[in-house]
Amino acid sequence: MHPVSQENIYVGEVANGLPLTIPVYRLKGNGTGKSVYIQANMHGAEVQGNAVIYQLLEQLQTLELNGDITLVPYANPIGCNQKSGEFTLGRFDPITGVNWNRMYHYDSQLPKLMAEQCAHLSSGEIRNTFQHALIASIDAQLEAPAHTLSTGKRIALQLQQLAHQADIVLDLHTGPISTQHLYCPEYARASAKYFNIANVLLIPNEFDGALDEAAFCPWWQLKAQLNALDCAFEVPVEAFTVELGSQERIDLSAAKDDADNILTYLNYQGVLQDAPFYPKEMTRYGCMLSDYKTYYAPMGGMVEYLAPLGEPIAAGTPIANILRMERYLSETPLHTLCADSDAIAILHFASASVNQGTELYKFFTNTFEL
Amino acid sequence: MHPVSQENIYVGEVANGLPLTIPVYRLKGNGTGKSVYIQANMHGAEVQGNAVIYQLLEQLQTLELNGDITLVPYANPIGCNQKSGEFTLGRFDPITGVNWNRMYHYDSQLPKLMAEQCAHLSSGEIRNTFQHALIASIDAQLEAPAHTLSTGKRIALQLQQLAHQADIVLDLHTGPISTQHLYCPEYARASAKYFNIANVLLIPNEFDGALDEAAFCPWWQLKAQLNALDCAFEVPVEAFTVELGSQERIDLSAAKDDADNILTYLNYQGVLQDAPFYPKEMTRYGCMLSDYKTYYAPMGGMVEYLAPLGEPIAAGTPIANILRMERYLSETPLHTLCADSDAIAILHFASASVNQGTELYKFFTNTFEL
Amino acid sequence: MHPVSQENIYVGEVANGLPLTIPVYRLKGNGTGKSVYIQANMHGAEVQGNAVIYQLLEQLQTLELNGDITLVPYANPIGCNQKSGEFTLGRFDPITGVNWNRMYHYDSQLPKLMAEQCAHLSSGEIRNTFQHALIASIDAQLEAPAHTLSTGKRIALQLQQLAHQADIVLDLHTGPISTQHLYCPEYARASAKYFNIANVLLIPNEFDGALDEAAFCPWWQLKAQLNALDCAFEVPVEAFTVELGSQERIDLSAAKDDADNILTYLNYQGVLQDAPFYPKEMTRYGCMLSDYKTYYAPMGGMVEYLAPLGEPIAAGTPIANILRMERYLSETPLHTLCADSDAIAILHFASASVNQGTELYKFFTNTFEL
Amino acid sequence: MHPVSQENIYVGEVANGLPLTIPVYRLKGNGTGKSVYIQANMHGAEVQGNAVIYQLLEQLQTLELNGDITLVPYANPIGCNQKSGEFTLGRFDPITGVNWNRMYHYDSQLPKLMAEQCAHLSSGEIRNTFQHALIASIDAQLEAPAHTLSTGKRIALQLQQLAHQADIVLDLHTGPISTQHLYCPEYARASAKYFNIANVLLIPNEFDGALDEAAFCPWWQLKAQLNALDCAFEVPVEAFTVELGSQERIDLSAAKDDADNILTYLNYQGVLQDAPFYPKEMTRYGCMLSDYKTYYAPMGGMVEYLAPLGEPIAAGTPIANILRMERYLSETPLHTLCADSDAIAILHFASASVNQGTELYKFFTNTFEL
Repeated sequence: MHPVSQENIYVGEVANGLPLTIPVYRLKGNGTGKSVYIQANMHGAEVQGNAVIYQLLEQLQTLELNGDITLVPYANPIGCNQKSGEFTLGRFDPITGVNWNRMYHYDSQLPKLMAEQCAHLSSGEIRNTFQHALIASIDAQLEAPAHTLSTGKRIALQLQQLAHQADIVLDLHTGPISTQHLYCPEYARASAKYFNIANVLLIPNEFDGALDEAAFCPWWQLKAQLNALDCAFEVPVEAFTVELGSQERIDLSAAKDDADNILTYLNYQGVLQDAPFYPKEMTRYGCMLSDYKTYYAPMGGMVEYLAPLGEPIAAGTPIANILRMERYLSETPLHTLCADSDAIAILHFASASVNQGTELYKFFTNTFEL
Repeated sequence: MHPVSQENIYVGEVANGLPLTIPVYRLKGNGTGKSVYIQANMHGAEVQGNAVIYQLLEQLQTLELNGDITLVPYANPIGCNQKSGEFTLGRFDPITGVNWNRMYHYDSQLPKLMAEQCAHLSSGEIRNTFQHALIASIDAQLEAPAHTLSTGKRIALQLQQLAHQADIVLDLHTGPISTQHLYCPEYARASAKYFNIANVLLIPNEFDGALDEAAFCPWWQLKAQLNALDCAFEVPVEAFTVELGSQERIDLSAAKDDADNILTYLNYQGVLQDAPFYPKEMTRYGCMLSDYKTYYAPMGGMVEYLAPLGEPIAAGTPIANILRMERYLSETPLHTLCADSDAIAILHFASASVNQGTELYKFFTNTFEL
Repeated sequence: MHPVSQENIYVGEVANGLPLTIPVYRLKGNGTGKSVYIQANMHGAEVQGNAVIYQLLEQLQTLELNGDITLVPYANPIGCNQKSGEFTLGRFDPITGVNWNRMYHYDSQLPKLMAEQCAHLSSGEIRNTFQHALIASIDAQLEAPAHTLSTGKRIALQLQQLAHQADIVLDLHTGPISTQHLYCPEYARASAKYFNIANVLLIPNEFDGALDEAAFCPWWQLKAQLNALDCAFEVPVEAFTVELGSQERIDLSAAKDDADNILTYLNYQGVLQDAPFYPKEMTRYGCMLSDYKTYYAPMGGMVEYLAPLGEPIAAGTPIANILRMERYLSETPLHTLCADSDAIAILHFASASVNQGTELYKFFTNTFEL
Repeated sequence: MHPVSQENIYVGEVANGLPLTIPVYRLKGNGTGKSVYIQANMHGAEVQGNAVIYQLLEQLQTLELNGDITLVPYANPIGCNQKSGEFTLGRFDPITGVNWNRMYHYDSQLPKLMAEQCAHLSSGEIRNTFQHALIASIDAQLEAPAHTLSTGKRIALQLQQLAHQADIVLDLHTGPISTQHLYCPEYARASAKYFNIANVLLIPNEFDGALDEAAFCPWWQLKAQLNALDCAFEVPVEAFTVELGSQERIDLSAAKDDADNILTYLNYQGVLQDAPFYPKEMTRYGCMLSDYKTYYAPMGGMVEYLAPLGEPIAAGTPIANILRMERYLSETPLHTLCADSDAIAILHFASASVNQGTELYKFFTNTFEL
């Protein structure tokens, strides 16, 4: 069996002094392959990634590894323990409302600065230099006086420090009620077909605070800056947010499939040695982030969700019935909403009662086959 | 079509003065049958009862009615609008924590007092006198100075005032993730087989604050007091809590079945005229309230729920896997919990992550066929 | 310096496996005096008791002790870490709504049973026997299968087990915005004047789930049962809830006064040796629990609180202005509420915006000098 | 008395169909002066602005007005009714976590586009044209299909539509526990001394979603664009966020002072006729937004806040004691934090218990006299 080591990193403490720690599991490769960082459960209700890491650990111990692999379940010890009623209020800091996955660090000046300094170096040298600079930039913040870091920033930085050490970064999330989908940077589009995920969102080179962006945006910007200086350079890092399905659900069998799915991509990347994981034949749909459309509730009411998740539907297909019982006599009590364009429903709201303006659905539109 | 009338009752106002109102729909019978009161959505996340009332209204308008029927959707205008993250925090007052369905009124002295005063009267006279006394007791509270009533009490009393006017009271609820089940007072056990609900909880003559109890306990106590005085009297009122399934879900087709189910019982009670609603042949299980067992999480962790809901399982059947990823190396990360007796799983917790001691499941035990 | 020892007791674990522990500090007496148990912060926002325990520890180390003293800050590791916005949502379990201070155990049969068994014994023997029975009754629950205990019950039982070992139990709480006051069992009324607390609530022999009641009710019931059997017996235990002032506030100087206040009572009880703590000359008001009146908001609105806390006011004194800006033109926008009887305002709501029916104030009425 | 008119604008509806409305009060001027828009309570717990609007209405009716005045209390009907425990969870949408005061609209292309089109026009013509364009840009969004607007956006847009019609915009807020302070755009620095507010934050020309920025940024950008085209143009609009003090507090007497304060500025701006409101002699401190420093809790614990609010303190002054009772024996239980530079404490956190990384204080640093 391939040995696994564990380290518990300290990422904060709560009001009565109890420490917040995160378990970090590591498997060492033979040094010939890319290194991998996988985390799960940054959003408190999105627990299935923990089960995927369990299934990954079970399998990775039986495989030969070319690259090092770091696995981090329970990435957010506050979020996963924050209940409000029977659900986990884990998407944002309950004090500030800030999304836990929008607190990673990005120094927008660094790529330009480093491009100018490194344009004369080899790709490998540039890679090493820039990686050290990224890690140093995180270290500097973690070493600043304790009173300069917010709770969420301290957690995010410590995870990001681990992520920057890897060539491949996977952040395991789920939607509310959701089908599997993948956030893929546009430059890594070719890799998307090595995941068994039918719906792929292609995202541009813009940092909005999430881990995947924090992992790839600096490199993508560096490439752009170097290319502008006529220095050839390819982005050496790939980072994805893998949306596993619905929140508040643990399914060990589905987690085995999800783990196989990830192993397929890692196999393609050469992280595994002689491992029998190959992508499935399937239709994969792509959608540009600018075509990812939110459909807010056009009225308050009680919602019956009708759109099948993950499958193409035609414009005009009913996607929800909204019940308005206080109007039973005065107006029609039942309103049917329809898709206003061809689309694939990716996720819908977790509750059946909504205010006017609550996010009901998110749809891929203008999809294309990958 | 049978005419329906609507009244909006005022049950309070919020901080910026917006009024809280509840729609009340009424259909008048021909005066020969029992009267009925049905409400839904006292707990904010338990929305399906609104859809059932919609389906009842659709059908009742086509039927001949012997008795009056009052239907109240959206019974709790605070609870159904209280969101916390993507879910409805609607089980308790968010300020006080008090369960919205534990604030109904019960004057424990009234049955004894009235029994002594009425023992010489006919059953019909006793019935009228006591009903007036119950309603007067609610009126007295609603007419007391405004500063004597809490928010939830004011809502509850106004609903209870309507309920006391009926012979049959149905309070439509749901569990978190749940199979259909019925709370039935022990004395009305014979009526349970006129609902198409497989699992029936038989509850004793003890007031714990809920609407069904508020509707039947005074009458059951009155009967006991009168019988002790050698005065024959049968409880003239039946009240049930109908648990429709899972919260945060609107399903209009299931609501149609639920409505038919209720119409079957109303037909049996003679509320409808020549209506073709008859109970299904099915095995119905009974369980005494004292045998309704809660299974709390024996450890914190991430839970895969395994027990099928609504079906008998044998002692020893696995009911949950609990994942503990921080122990992957030090202890076994996966714990399987098993039922410790023969049981029927009725409901389980809505979230997949639990603290040690969170309510995981509720089970019928020592079940019997009804 | 008097030595202090520390033990951290384990009272549960959260979803990602982090343990919940509570620090327990102990000072040993010379064995000639009563033993004492003091806890703080069972309700999450009521933090000042922790500072009082800090000040007690600072002073107790310099004193000679006749009795053992156990001090427990941070009694509720979930409650004090539960934030919702900028405040601590620590009064009830955020999952169930159940008040954390209503989960202590009481076996209502035990006093009668033990009275019958022990009536022939000496007072000292009865005392020992019953104390062992109380502790055994807690042990039995803690040793039952893990799945039989809720989160809050597990915490409560472990604290109660410590409390039953003491002769004197003090549970340190605060109100929302509040003046100091004391919950005192009626039988211990004479002791109330050894606290420097002006307002004292006298509570009857009824168990409602709180720690003070859990500590004294069994003994008070035992006395009643023994006396009914013509067996002389005095309640050997005193238990109080000390309400220190307002929540969400740490004031180390006030905490020093609060600590002195408690030392005064302990000195009177002979727990301290030659300690210079004597009660202040002051007017102390008593109020029966049945005369402790809640004043709910008679309308929704924005509230200016006017009543001085802790001082007698006459009937008719304005206690609040309620602003209703949406009625500026249509009705009077400003409503002044007045006390409807002579009273002492003890506490008021923590927020300036209220629903109709929100608890505005609690008042002592029909007060008397102690 | 100057007449006041009222309109209730509809800004949404909740799950059970109850409408969300906001009262809008208007006083008409004689057409010779600047028009004014004042709103309050966009953040639910920040209620004092409603009382200020009450006091403004009381006084404005007795004054002669040159300009029109629009007053909007209760600007956020969801936020002010969202309770969690005894406090108002009103800073962000409880579903999404998004700050209610970050959802205003800004079309960053519009100033450039309009500058190019209007550079040849007179200042007055440019003013009218751009104002119409701003309002049209809001109208376009409000008229888009209902499913394109989130709950908070719909509320914000309807308020912004009113605000764009005014020359002067005041958004009344409060801090958590806070001293009065003013957010003032750098270009309007001269106006700051017409408020009786000692501490003034000078903010740059960057849109971050708030109402004041939404009101002045487009004009400031327009000026910059026009100036770049050698077209002279001064920003014709002033917009401020007025921070009145602490949240969860109504004080009618302080509100009278706050109203006088605002009337002083309006008098300076010529909105009032012969009105006797003049600025006080006082020292006013300015601070650039980049010098507004957050001090996060360097450790978890229970906090005694020590810094006086609103007054200059020297570097090294103690600002908080943090109590850590679980370390009473093992480490020092009491930690004193000190300011690391000369500063003025503007606000501190509302709770006495904090996680490591919770925002403790915000400080003006590098202050200067205005």
